[in-house]
Amino acid sequence: MEIQYFEFLKYLVRFNRQVYLDHNATTPVGDRVRSKMERVLKYQYGNPSSFYGLGRKSAGLVEQARKQVSQVIHADPSEVIFTSCASESNNAVLKSVAAHFYPKKKKIISSPIEHPSVTNTLAYLETQGVLVEYCRVDDKGRVLLADLEKRMDRDTFLVCCILANNETGVIQDIGTVTKIARRHGALVLTDCVQALGKMPIDVHAWDVDYASFSAHKLYGPKGIGALYVKRGSPFMPLLHGGHQEGGMRAGTENLHNIVGFGAACQDVDKLLAHTKQIRVLKRQLIQRLREIKPNCVINTPEAEAECLPNTLSITFPGVDNAGLMGMLDFRGIAVSAGSACSTGEDTPSHVLKAIGLSDQAARETIRISLGHGNTARDIRYMTQVVQDFIEGRVSFVNMLAPAQLNETILFDEKTFILDVRPPDDRKQFKGLPNAHEVNPLQVERYLKQLPREKRILVYCPGGGLSVMISYYLRAKGFKRVTNLRGGLDAWRKRRGDLYQKYAGQNVSVLQPDSEIPS
Amino acid sequence: MEIQYFEFLKYLVRFNRQVYLDHNATTPVGDRVRSKMERVLKYQYGNPSSFYGLGRKSAGLVEQARKQVSQVIHADPSEVIFTSCASESNNAVLKSVAAHFYPKKKKIISSPIEHPSVTNTLAYLETQGVLVEYCRVDDKGRVLLADLEKRMDRDTFLVCCILANNETGVIQDIGTVTKIARRHGALVLTDCVQALGKMPIDVHAWDVDYASFSAHKLYGPKGIGALYVKRGSPFMPLLHGGHQEGGMRAGTENLHNIVGFGAACQDVDKLLAHTKQIRVLKRQLIQRLREIKPNCVINTPEAEAECLPNTLSITFPGVDNAGLMGMLDFRGIAVSAGSACSTGEDTPSHVLKAIGLSDQAARETIRISLGHGNTARDIRYMTQVVQDFIEGRVSFVNMLAPAQLNETILFDEKTFILDVRPPDDRKQFKGLPNAHEVNPLQVERYLKQLPREKRILVYCPGGGLSVMISYYLRAKGFKRVTNLRGGLDAWRKRRGDLYQKYAGQNVSVLQPDSEIPS
Repeated sequence: MEIQYFEFLKYLVRFNRQVYLDHNATTPVGDRVRSKMERVLKYQYGNPSSFYGLGRKSAGLVEQARKQVSQVIHADPSEVIFTSCASESNNAVLKSVAAHFYPKKKKIISSPIEHPSVTNTLAYLETQGVLVEYCRVDDKGRVLLADLEKRMDRDTFLVCCILANNETGVIQDIGTVTKIARRHGALVLTDCVQALGKMPIDVHAWDVDYASFSAHKLYGPKGIGALYVKRGSPFMPLLHGGHQEGGMRAGTENLHNIVGFGAACQDVDKLLAHTKQIRVLKRQLIQRLREIKPNCVINTPEAEAECLPNTLSITFPGVDNAGLMGMLDFRGIAVSAGSACSTGEDTPSHVLKAIGLSDQAARETIRISLGHGNTARDIRYMTQVVQDFIEGRVSFVNMLAPAQLNETILFDEKTFILDVRPPDDRKQFKGLPNAHEVNPLQVERYLKQLPREKRILVYCPGGGLSVMISYYLRAKGFKRVTNLRGGLDAWRKRRGDLYQKYAGQNVSVLQPDSEIPS
Repeated sequence: MEIQYFEFLKYLVRFNRQVYLDHNATTPVGDRVRSKMERVLKYQYGNPSSFYGLGRKSAGLVEQARKQVSQVIHADPSEVIFTSCASESNNAVLKSVAAHFYPKKKKIISSPIEHPSVTNTLAYLETQGVLVEYCRVDDKGRVLLADLEKRMDRDTFLVCCILANNETGVIQDIGTVTKIARRHGALVLTDCVQALGKMPIDVHAWDVDYASFSAHKLYGPKGIGALYVKRGSPFMPLLHGGHQEGGMRAGTENLHNIVGFGAACQDVDKLLAHTKQIRVLKRQLIQRLREIKPNCVINTPEAEAECLPNTLSITFPGVDNAGLMGMLDFRGIAVSAGSACSTGEDTPSHVLKAIGLSDQAARETIRISLGHGNTARDIRYMTQVVQDFIEGRVSFVNMLAPAQLNETILFDEKTFILDVRPPDDRKQFKGLPNAHEVNPLQVERYLKQLPREKRILVYCPGGGLSVMISYYLRAKGFKRVTNLRGGLDAWRKRRGDLYQKYAGQNVSVLQPDSEIPS
């Protein structure tokens, strides 16, 4: 009892320690990059399209950054276009190439482990008539080259193959993929977003036609991407308008971000040199996690050449990842379940499913992605929290399985249902009956309105955000907090009968307190 | 003679004074906006899509900025989507609405004075089968409502009408335009980029369906736009991928820029209050210019309610605008001929042509756009330079008419032809014979290679950039500098025979000096 009380106190005092282990989602901006951007923001406001001195100076900065980016990917500056993000780069290539070939040729072959900006654009193109085939990968996510070769035909105009996957870190043999595509007259798009800064990039040596990049994965700013288009490969702009980017991308240039991207690229050599230390940390991490949970499954390839140095995807059988991530967040540790671009959905990651994980296993998987600021101490701290959680010493948020959420709980007077869904989900789906809607991003402004004597049942669309908020409420002294596992999505699927009958009934919208608590 | 020498010295000493009078092209970032952005760049690196604390904090910043933007345009936050620029906003609306209606309905009616991101997207849609009709405007650019009404029919699904034009500042009666469109069941897109911060915006009162905005026109950062989509109006994302922006715009959020846009919107009331002073400056400016050149023509409407307070489009009969802008740039003054998004072309502005200016008059027109940093002293300085130029006291760059550029000059041993075209133009068109190509953005790195004893003939695609570089060379002590008026474009049209015969012959590429001069 005494030990429990001590443990409880220990966790109630929320340490201010922050350990960021989600560098595949985004990275902090490097100091040198930031200071260059700040100088531009302060002094260089000329429009690069203007001919007067201020404008020419800005245009010169854009061209310098273009050179810096092209150098690290081994391209010619004339082959690099700045975009607003890699999602734009991928959209632009896929739509442009489809418009160029379709309906003369009809087929795109893609790996099944692409980023959502590729898979969802392919899904859109399918509605326009384009045929999309997904080639198979092995249990580490490596594209089965024989399967790719088998699917290639004269109707195929493009192959999409992500260079290094964001969730598992698996690296593809892109040179061979391109050779196969070339033999059949197809072009190749490779998404290099996660790879830049973590492994050498040589678009010319690989002979790909298109490659996409993003600054915010390599300690550059968010909101700036680049697109490599091989000289002579077909490309039409996605954004029509002004003649910026050689007529290939309209819109006034995001000057400070472009300069930031260039500056981040100047550090790529240093980043690559540092991967050695990151590999050491990752080995320590794996070793500790294996000690804690001997039956854990490592989803990332073990061979150095086949995996990003910083990425670890790991499955803990029997451990719900939402609960674990909630506890990690509570202790100031940031990790994720998969791509940040697909959070919010209950659907298990398409990448993990493609490498053979069951839905259950996917829900027991977390991704840890290291960065050059991480230390061995970070690893010790993080693994300790994982151990405490897995050994059941600290789980003080209850998890409610969707099948168990029945009328008794829904209409229980001692249960306060808290809806922390984002506005667009609320527009799309009716929520639980008797729920109280709050702004999920400002939960701290509703604390006075939540009853301390009742059980609080928190729910969101997929069960990921709500668990983090549940832990937050626990930390704020709410004693009985329950999280709906899998969120509304899962409950709708399991208890469609109840959803039909009660959804949206008696919902109230809480107004935030006017003062913001410290 | 003595006076001339004194004048010459006076102009040779290039003053460091900078007077920026091109606020419709872009604006400097306000101090408060910048400091907010810098804080985000330093501390808030969480991905807004991530559920952990860092991510939620970032998501909260995005929502706060969305509220700030929606407030100043009188929209609901749920109706505002952040994009990378207004060009993206315009592209997204036009392509999405066309995909929604076409081929059931086929026609878009547009004003003829839209921004290139609208006109060029419309031109693209025409290649896809959409019919585009342009309604007429009067000599001040006001849409002729009767003409619009006449063109409306059941086949029309969209009306595009820019709220305030970027070149002349003319403001449209958008409420009435929308009423006409509504009567015929058509939707309305209005480009409000130039209007925000210069006049009150109320998208709900006007009842438009779509409105586009950009931060960098109101002392916010470049590279961030917003799009208003009225609740219920059809919209499909242009960028597929992650579920950012409520599923309406994929791509990791440009967090610092979004925060900057929100911060800039907080200052809109102050900006609007300040327009009174700007109107006074503009009146002074017009008065002085009329004294200098009594036959000048003001292309902007005179009535306050019909024109942006800061914008002046003015034609000086007999005065080549390229030469004037070159001289102004030489004296540190930034003005432009038209939209920054259509510089580089010899084609006269489509806006000026729509309001009835001849090609010749369009080439004699400049746009002056004031900002809240400008003073009466700036106006005095600028008008003095205009006066000196117009009265012929300072024009020391020779202008060569395209028709005059014949074989004698092309093959003259005492003429050194300098090609300052951007790389993409060089890829597209062969240049003048015997030309020497340099990087137009780094002319200072070629000075040692240019012969001081020869006449230097500078040319670019449209004659705008080259005249500025010509003035620069004059300032660097080159005594005989000639600029090809209208650039290669004009020469190709006038002397197609010579172009066919000689273009691209004996062209050499100069290498920049390794040291950068101070």
